[in-house]
Amino acid sequence: MAVVVGFIATAEGRAALEAAIEEAKLRSQRLLVLVHGGRDAEPDAIEEAMEEARSTIDPSGVGYEVRHLQRGKDVAEALVHTAIDADAELIVIGIRRRSPLGKLILGSNAQRILLESPCHVLAAKPQE
Amino acid sequence: MAVVVGFIATAEGRAALEAAIEEAKLRSQRLLVLVHGGRDAEPDAIEEAMEEARSTIDPSGVGYEVRHLQRGKDVAEALVHTAIDADAELIVIGIRRRSPLGKLILGSNAQRILLESPCHVLAAKPQE
Repeated sequence: MAVVVGFIATAEGRAALEAAIEEAKLRSQRLLVLVHGGRDAEPDAIEEAMEEARSTIDPSGVGYEVRHLQRGKDVAEALVHTAIDADAELIVIGIRRRSPLGKLILGSNAQRILLESPCHVLAAKPQE
Repeated sequence: MAVVVGFIATAEGRAALEAAIEEAKLRSQRLLVLVHGGRDAEPDAIEEAMEEARSTIDPSGVGYEVRHLQRGKDVAEALVHTAIDADAELIVIGIRRRSPLGKLILGSNAQRILLESPCHVLAAKPQE
């Protein structure tokens, strides 16, 4: 059993990671972090995001593993497969609040994870 | 602080209630249950659903309050307002897996709750 979280270095990604750390603590489970970088991430940016994830989790004492998504791979599919493989209890995702035009939207990755997840999904909201 | 859950006497509603009981236990928080009946619920059906919610929660030892949504009121709005009033840590909702035509869909109430919630939202999946 594990808590699976997708991490990207944005407000939503950080909200998801913080929530996932709390959930892993509450449940006494390890954390599987899948780092991705959005559509056009450079290898350096992915490496930085992995380092940010590690240094965010380290002080919590939670056991974890940080992996990165191969470039071009589908985030929703990778999270769902990781959750299935790990027999995860929970997937944690961040929810974007507003599009660049100010419209409230639920991203298509979030929708697909919510629908295709084998387990419960926690949608974390960034602090306003 | 509280865990807020919407309950309706369906597979999704029961999945949400079961998950919410577990979350309230994990967090040592009380549970606020908002019972609604779908579009055309008769008063008797709401009464039965409230009774089902109570008898599901009772054995858990979790402190709770069961309320019902006034007929014609908007479920998403009521859950979000209940969460704000209670300074809730979490809203729990059930996620429907397939439309009557077999298509995977995320209901509009679920989408609105995910976007408008003041707190994290746990989307519970019914057992297959």
